[in-house]
Amino acid sequence: MKIVTSCKMNSVIKKGLLEKYPNVDFSFHPTIKDAEPELESAEILITYGEDLNDERINKAHNLKWIMVVSAGVEKLPFEAIKQKNILVTNARGIHKTPMAEYTIAMILQVSRKSKQLIENEKQEIWDRTIKMMEIKGKVITIIGTGAIGSEIARLAKAFHMKTVGVNRSGHNCEWFDEVFSVNEIDQAIGQSDFVVSVLPSTPETYHLLKEDHFVKMKKEAVFISIGRGNVVDENALIKVLKAGEISHAVLDVFEHEPLPKGHPFWNMENVTVTPHISGLSSLYQPRGFEIFEYNLEQYLSGENNFKNIIDLDRRY
Amino acid sequence: MKIVTSCKMNSVIKKGLLEKYPNVDFSFHPTIKDAEPELESAEILITYGEDLNDERINKAHNLKWIMVVSAGVEKLPFEAIKQKNILVTNARGIHKTPMAEYTIAMILQVSRKSKQLIENEKQEIWDRTIKMMEIKGKVITIIGTGAIGSEIARLAKAFHMKTVGVNRSGHNCEWFDEVFSVNEIDQAIGQSDFVVSVLPSTPETYHLLKEDHFVKMKKEAVFISIGRGNVVDENALIKVLKAGEISHAVLDVFEHEPLPKGHPFWNMENVTVTPHISGLSSLYQPRGFEIFEYNLEQYLSGENNFKNIIDLDRRY
Repeated sequence: MKIVTSCKMNSVIKKGLLEKYPNVDFSFHPTIKDAEPELESAEILITYGEDLNDERINKAHNLKWIMVVSAGVEKLPFEAIKQKNILVTNARGIHKTPMAEYTIAMILQVSRKSKQLIENEKQEIWDRTIKMMEIKGKVITIIGTGAIGSEIARLAKAFHMKTVGVNRSGHNCEWFDEVFSVNEIDQAIGQSDFVVSVLPSTPETYHLLKEDHFVKMKKEAVFISIGRGNVVDENALIKVLKAGEISHAVLDVFEHEPLPKGHPFWNMENVTVTPHISGLSSLYQPRGFEIFEYNLEQYLSGENNFKNIIDLDRRY
Repeated sequence: MKIVTSCKMNSVIKKGLLEKYPNVDFSFHPTIKDAEPELESAEILITYGEDLNDERINKAHNLKWIMVVSAGVEKLPFEAIKQKNILVTNARGIHKTPMAEYTIAMILQVSRKSKQLIENEKQEIWDRTIKMMEIKGKVITIIGTGAIGSEIARLAKAFHMKTVGVNRSGHNCEWFDEVFSVNEIDQAIGQSDFVVSVLPSTPETYHLLKEDHFVKMKKEAVFISIGRGNVVDENALIKVLKAGEISHAVLDVFEHEPLPKGHPFWNMENVTVTPHISGLSSLYQPRGFEIFEYNLEQYLSGENNFKNIIDLDRRY
């Protein structure tokens, strides 16, 4: 049974897999180009999910399972995969800790005027008149109540914030004081001091957040985008930020990444840009391969009780 | 019965006091200079605690109670106050929310390399190779386990950090996994990723943290100082930072404030300076006067069951 990788891997993890599964034929490759000759014989493929296309799937005659060591699966060639009925799993859940820490870090950074304080420090200015905001008692709306959204809500509750969730059906979730369905999103965002989008990229979420939504937010609201960039209509966002309809946007994801030099977001006073790093962590691969190994045990034993299966129709 | 103030007060709070206590003779003054002529007849004085001296205390023949609307009482003329047996209370406890939010903000700012990210943003650089640290699983030692230290520990537990406390006797406190006495401080700081000093300025805490303590910390340790500046031997701190004995210092308080232009701390790569703002909050006065009103009720009713009494010998 052959497992092929098309991603750079930590050498400790490689060694661990070789030792634990001596009967498996591992073929490690840092890129899909290197892995290409092995695709035909691969039964399992481990990838970051951004390097596949119809041609490669059609070439992979023996492929039964694709493990995406990431959360984003929007670049997979779903039609081809569906036709061949290949199992797809991902590493969702492993991002929740760094992404929740990122979100709280940014909420505090904006509320406590850290950019101004850092600028003053550079200029050796001792200014105690900067107006800081406490986050205790503030309202946070989190659009997307899965593993990441819930972890953000859990931390927000520790800071005594009010947590509001938005999900497909409006069903209740732990750590949320209130949950609204996507159809009721206006009610959720209208009352919030912080609005966080954690949504994946799917046909349903494309440009889900439009001008109208931002206009309905409080003028003091801070918008934080950490899911996928195309959930937001970026032109609308630029417009509302220029008009002062919301007070600040913290953007870690964009419709086109890397965000090109000269893009308006880089230089707007009321925007903070980070380079899609909210999910990064030195523990990323170890956690991702923990999920892979769990599923590999299921696969080898034939029990097939897999974690993190991607629904090929819903695409997440 | 006359109450004199020597501090600028929110007009809503003034109005509330006048309405609630029509039989009290309030004499509001924004500074001690303005208040000076009223000192002789004052029974209660409300101050930020930095404007008194022996002469003023001796002049205040009728003074029974000094309310300090702050936590720091180190500038009070304690001998004169003790001789006249004047009650002193302060506003400790009201700082815990902003100071705990500050501490977590700074822990995340250093761990997630926010200064570098903000610099990159200015230069429109998309760099995803910056090494970020999760705070989950890290160890935080908090020197001072009172209201502020406990609130920091409570939030740190929400981030799944290990919390270690240091106090006079080593007695256990809520939210701390372990507590050491001041004599065992080396054991507490040797294992920590973050060391936070929340100590007040007293004869006992003067230069409590010396070169030797910093040398015993991990090379990766981040030191955060939010109590009083003279708890730390600043020359020793500069020396260990230059030698790389610890990785970073976040300093909100200093031996001499404001920190003068040209002071080495302003420009050191591994130092973050903020202008004694960790306790600032728009809710500062309302919370302080809540405590004052509680004590005023005690005073007026003769029950004398006061909150936040300062021990005139221990001076905190």
